[in-house]
Amino acid sequence: MTAPRSNLPVDAGRIADIVEGLARITEPDRPYTRRAFTPLFLEGRAFLEQRFKAAGLKTRIDAAGNLIGGRKGRNSAIGTIMLGSHSDTVPDGGRFDGIAGVAAALEVARSLADAGIELDHDLEIVDFLAEEVSIFGVSCIGSRGMAGLVPDEWLGRKHGELTLRHGLIEAGGDPSRLPALKRPDIKAFLELHIEQGPVLETERLDIGVVTAISGITRIEVIVEGQADHAGTAPMGRRRDALVAASRLVLEIEELGLAYAARDGHFTATVGEFEIEPNAANVVPSRARLLIDARAELRPQMEKFIVEVAALATRVAEETGVAIAPPKVISDNQPTPGDPLILATLEAACERVGARSRRMASGAGHDTAWMARVAKAAMIFIPCRDGRSHAPEEWAENDDIALGAAVLFEAMRRLDGQLQETN
Amino acid sequence: MTAPRSNLPVDAGRIADIVEGLARITEPDRPYTRRAFTPLFLEGRAFLEQRFKAAGLKTRIDAAGNLIGGRKGRNSAIGTIMLGSHSDTVPDGGRFDGIAGVAAALEVARSLADAGIELDHDLEIVDFLAEEVSIFGVSCIGSRGMAGLVPDEWLGRKHGELTLRHGLIEAGGDPSRLPALKRPDIKAFLELHIEQGPVLETERLDIGVVTAISGITRIEVIVEGQADHAGTAPMGRRRDALVAASRLVLEIEELGLAYAARDGHFTATVGEFEIEPNAANVVPSRARLLIDARAELRPQMEKFIVEVAALATRVAEETGVAIAPPKVISDNQPTPGDPLILATLEAACERVGARSRRMASGAGHDTAWMARVAKAAMIFIPCRDGRSHAPEEWAENDDIALGAAVLFEAMRRLDGQLQETN
Repeated sequence: MTAPRSNLPVDAGRIADIVEGLARITEPDRPYTRRAFTPLFLEGRAFLEQRFKAAGLKTRIDAAGNLIGGRKGRNSAIGTIMLGSHSDTVPDGGRFDGIAGVAAALEVARSLADAGIELDHDLEIVDFLAEEVSIFGVSCIGSRGMAGLVPDEWLGRKHGELTLRHGLIEAGGDPSRLPALKRPDIKAFLELHIEQGPVLETERLDIGVVTAISGITRIEVIVEGQADHAGTAPMGRRRDALVAASRLVLEIEELGLAYAARDGHFTATVGEFEIEPNAANVVPSRARLLIDARAELRPQMEKFIVEVAALATRVAEETGVAIAPPKVISDNQPTPGDPLILATLEAACERVGARSRRMASGAGHDTAWMARVAKAAMIFIPCRDGRSHAPEEWAENDDIALGAAVLFEAMRRLDGQLQETN
Repeated sequence: MTAPRSNLPVDAGRIADIVEGLARITEPDRPYTRRAFTPLFLEGRAFLEQRFKAAGLKTRIDAAGNLIGGRKGRNSAIGTIMLGSHSDTVPDGGRFDGIAGVAAALEVARSLADAGIELDHDLEIVDFLAEEVSIFGVSCIGSRGMAGLVPDEWLGRKHGELTLRHGLIEAGGDPSRLPALKRPDIKAFLELHIEQGPVLETERLDIGVVTAISGITRIEVIVEGQADHAGTAPMGRRRDALVAASRLVLEIEELGLAYAARDGHFTATVGEFEIEPNAANVVPSRARLLIDARAELRPQMEKFIVEVAALATRVAEETGVAIAPPKVISDNQPTPGDPLILATLEAACERVGARSRRMASGAGHDTAWMARVAKAAMIFIPCRDGRSHAPEEWAENDDIALGAAVLFEAMRRLDGQLQETN
């Protein structure tokens, strides 16, 4: 997006070194794949740890398997400011999702040291464990751990013979110390991440200051029709579950478009869709839809849930199928960014000359969990065509560097501001 | 449908004996399942063979694995009249689909003998092998064989380690004699079958005289959209393959309804439907639809194929996805019933007092293959709620008996009529 800037307080080349170094550590036949708990992930971790150490940071792995590089402040008693993201990828993922945030965080630490800037707070750079949905089927394990919110029963989850408990130990964590991990000493957490959407690119902006991480609600709808012979059941006398489900898909899309046109970020997606018996010569008897709905503003989501239920009732009446009341199977609230940090990030954007806008995140992030224990907020940088979780995912190194410069400026300011507000 | 009739030339009790005898020969945990090539199927065959023999028929298994019970006519040189259907079931099938036709055919042979009626033609009763889609993935093996139309390559088809070639041998067939099996000696073939639809029941009729077996055309449509993050891709900027595919489903349903309202039987069903990646948080990138379309009148099908292609182009344009030209992956022509036999069947209905109507079959049947070598036609009897291929499938024994009486009368007439037309 931006032309290279020569007057930044950070070094774009050192950011590229981290991104490119991790990109080389991938399953060779399916770039870019470095899933948490795999040997490749641990290889990536070893690379990062070496770079953390070379930057003069003291490294450790906490109980939740997070890699942390720390530097003491002048007054450790006032707490810690943490920066970071994650280095794990989805299968067939990209080179920047999470990774850009870890590289930027490390660069901030190096640049502060290079500039001879000492903070009052302790500084920690973090690579969270397993932000993406892991081989154990759960995500954000490291940041949940730091918020004291990893459910006990998760430790028994299995991938083949391996339990999450054992996987955590292999990653250097300590399940027995997990209950005591919660980190009230962290006073602020900041994360840089690629936008994973097209807004910044389209609007030719450098930075998204993330006002909120949208809540995610998953709603399951089951349509029960009747299996009939595809050749002998007359067209007008069927209860075709696929036809009714297709109506639902189109009306959910329309609802989503209408909500998105109002205040705040909103999306509604039918991502999972299956029919039974799924046989060429049988009228479909059953369909299952899973709606993924995301709202920046909670009242919108509550309205949406009610409207989906009304829609299901109406489609059932109009098509003759049975539709049970839609079932909310998970429901996470939106996480607003901390107002002090948001204001500080905007001031930092102005200071380094980055064109910014406020925007919500439609994706979940470690920041949402860190916000449970600390003031937290994040910034977005542009990415190409809004693509992520794919090998084509791309962010310009200069855009990451500009984001790192924003974090650098924000850190300097927060170090003082946090003490004033305490 | 009908009250029991005491003046029929057939014995309803002997029909019930066959239906109930076969119903007892099922996988115990999933009634009613007696799939071709399984030990249970062969057990059913042994039961039938015993009943064929008890009726004075000479039994044999032909090269295609069909069980045949024969009785010589006064003038074998003029050829054979054949009656029958199939005794195999789908998994979790019913007690009447195919079976009612075998039982009725056998009862016609017994009743002719009881009445001392000798035919000029040879009479053969047949239980075709594997009318339903078999464990080898193909159907109508026996009737295709009798028409000389089993593709050579089918013999190599496998179910686990078992080839169709070997399965045929186990069923008493002889793959080496299959190429020579074609039966030009058969002058007429008649089949009784449950309707598998609701028309006769609704209209309180006894017999459907089947004017044609609809052609079946299968059309595959592939929708290519773009996988996007369900939370970050703005609603208005997506190329959601499921949304486009849902449009197609609804428009195909509308087309089907419009065609069904015109002349001739017509159905259009999307029976197979899958999306990719089918993940909660990803906008669907791909959808596959398989349309099963059936038409009594070929020109309607040809028009439908063209309209589906136009529809795909329009939906692609309107939604921004890519849809390749729909692919016709199989295309069978309709099979009209033989006019002489249809007229004879109607006369027979009048003779026994059965209320009948002409109607097309939306399902495929062995008769469609027999029509390739002989004059052929079939009759339907009512079934409850139009259900078939399910344990709830039901036909009244008295309705089967009335159908058998129609076949009995038709046989007597055809024996002479066929000689007049030769």
